[in-house]
Amino acid sequence: MANKENNISINPNAQVIFNRKKSAPISVGDLMIGIEKGDRYILSKAITLVESNQIEDQSIANQLIDFCINKKPESLRIGITGTPGVGKSTFIDTLGTQIINENHKLAVLAIDPSSNISRGSILGDKTRMERLSMNLNAYIRPTPSADNLGGVARKTRETMILCEAAGFDTIIIETVGVGQSETAVYQLTDVFLLILQPGAGDELQGIKRGIMEMADILAINKADGERLSMAKFAKAAYTSALHLFQPKTSNWIPKVLTCSSTEENGILDIWNTIQSFQNLTIANNYKINKRNHQKLYWFEETFQNKLLNFYLENKEIADYKEELEMKILADTVTPFLAVDKLLQKIIDKYQK
Amino acid sequence: MANKENNISINPNAQVIFNRKKSAPISVGDLMIGIEKGDRYILSKAITLVESNQIEDQSIANQLIDFCINKKPESLRIGITGTPGVGKSTFIDTLGTQIINENHKLAVLAIDPSSNISRGSILGDKTRMERLSMNLNAYIRPTPSADNLGGVARKTRETMILCEAAGFDTIIIETVGVGQSETAVYQLTDVFLLILQPGAGDELQGIKRGIMEMADILAINKADGERLSMAKFAKAAYTSALHLFQPKTSNWIPKVLTCSSTEENGILDIWNTIQSFQNLTIANNYKINKRNHQKLYWFEETFQNKLLNFYLENKEIADYKEELEMKILADTVTPFLAVDKLLQKIIDKYQK
Repeated sequence: MANKENNISINPNAQVIFNRKKSAPISVGDLMIGIEKGDRYILSKAITLVESNQIEDQSIANQLIDFCINKKPESLRIGITGTPGVGKSTFIDTLGTQIINENHKLAVLAIDPSSNISRGSILGDKTRMERLSMNLNAYIRPTPSADNLGGVARKTRETMILCEAAGFDTIIIETVGVGQSETAVYQLTDVFLLILQPGAGDELQGIKRGIMEMADILAINKADGERLSMAKFAKAAYTSALHLFQPKTSNWIPKVLTCSSTEENGILDIWNTIQSFQNLTIANNYKINKRNHQKLYWFEETFQNKLLNFYLENKEIADYKEELEMKILADTVTPFLAVDKLLQKIIDKYQK
Repeated sequence: MANKENNISINPNAQVIFNRKKSAPISVGDLMIGIEKGDRYILSKAITLVESNQIEDQSIANQLIDFCINKKPESLRIGITGTPGVGKSTFIDTLGTQIINENHKLAVLAIDPSSNISRGSILGDKTRMERLSMNLNAYIRPTPSADNLGGVARKTRETMILCEAAGFDTIIIETVGVGQSETAVYQLTDVFLLILQPGAGDELQGIKRGIMEMADILAINKADGERLSMAKFAKAAYTSALHLFQPKTSNWIPKVLTCSSTEENGILDIWNTIQSFQNLTIANNYKINKRNHQKLYWFEETFQNKLLNFYLENKEIADYKEELEMKILADTVTPFLAVDKLLQKIIDKYQK
């Protein structure tokens, strides 16, 4: 089994040793076979390799990813965002159960850069998705740890690819919306849901810039009891606001729906709407184009970040950049002249 | 006169020779004196130097910019955008006349990257601002030519600095909204106006993503005659949509106003609103913080672009990047592994 891209040949008998003492070594070949069979234990082991920062683990992880990508499984990737308190967990628990009841296998992943500090602020406690966590057709995995959003996104993307190869045909990636995490989720998924809650006046405010325009479906959750009329009002307000935006390149007209996760009202409607989106975008090739665009997005983003960091990790360059920033703020150099100076410094220091 | 930042000493007697045969050479010192006096002829000559791509001209332009920045003149920078047909020229002509009547001096600049192809699609014909073009307290300058938006933004920013040093205390920068030009205008100005026109249903749609959220003031133009009731409807729709967004860091609540440039209705109201914004953001330090942030924005943006282009202008690197993109699309390499490969290529080729 030769892998030209990585310039390494895969030895299916290579033994992978996991840190936990009770784990017996598993060969790469066994990992591949296990993933193909949809073995949850093996899948978890493989994801641990993807998340590892050890060079040896990464080399094996790259082989696994290569193997999984080439299986080209069909899948639907759903992105879900919403501020804390809108009831995302219960929503995902209810929607996920609906999805599984229609004979799908579901993996729920999360991107939550804040959890690097307070580990496990999202999905750490599996019990917050009570029904899914007890269902063998659901696989829940907390946010991977990494020192930047790019790293989290990479690990989430590769975990998703492993899950798809293991037979999970539906993926939900959720985020609480810290920093640029919604953009990361948007660039990892096929369809993007924004969960809102009913509220009048001030409570309606506060959607982060750009989020509403990314959403394919707006779900107003907690549309039950006394909040029902507020939810209807919110639906009208958001529907009218969405009319102001440019039509989407997907030709999809964003939908605003109300639901109640606790009363399990409207969830089927949302699932049907997700499927309508899926059908439209498969038919008009938007889905495949978007996925290709996403691959190039991650290539471009990661390349630019890594190239910049390559230089800025050098203390002399970083210090000089900071010195220039001070001068720019003091108006003793213009931003554009400062760029010429910084580039000259880099060229003098590094170039052949 | 020594200029440490540029490592060149300024010789005020150096002669600048302009291309037009009838121009007599002007010394750098005379350019500085002329700008300080607000001499329009000298200002135009100085801007021509800023726009020039000749190395000698750029060196003199840098000295001029340095000189002008250090004068630290007070100014108000207004950004204006709107799709073609909303009546931007007449709006600026009317608003500008109002501004000049209150004893200000006004410079009108434009960012229109499309004009590199069809030169002069904006502001090329000064007669489209009839009153301003005949007023000695107004200075109108068409879009500078450059091969990318970054270049246009740099030249516009430096032209603005020259104009401010020449006593133009109010600057309007307009754009027709091609590509990322609104973001460029937003990052060059203190207050951002979006000009709209009344229209029902479909006509209300079509605002480019993110633009509405950047605007401090939405002006619904052409609110006259039969369109008056449509304008009022549009005002209500936009006001309600703006409520959905996060409050601005400026603490300014975006205003939606109607006006008629031809009937000169509502323009004074808009000018007063601009001044309210100005007063608020001076008092709460938002204006100075935003200007500092803008300087660092242009430093960062230009640095990243130039660093990337430094490598991608090399055919071997550019070809390899394209090859990797093909492989990414064919799923024979992941985006993240492709980045490692591209960086390795750059390091092998360039680094000491």
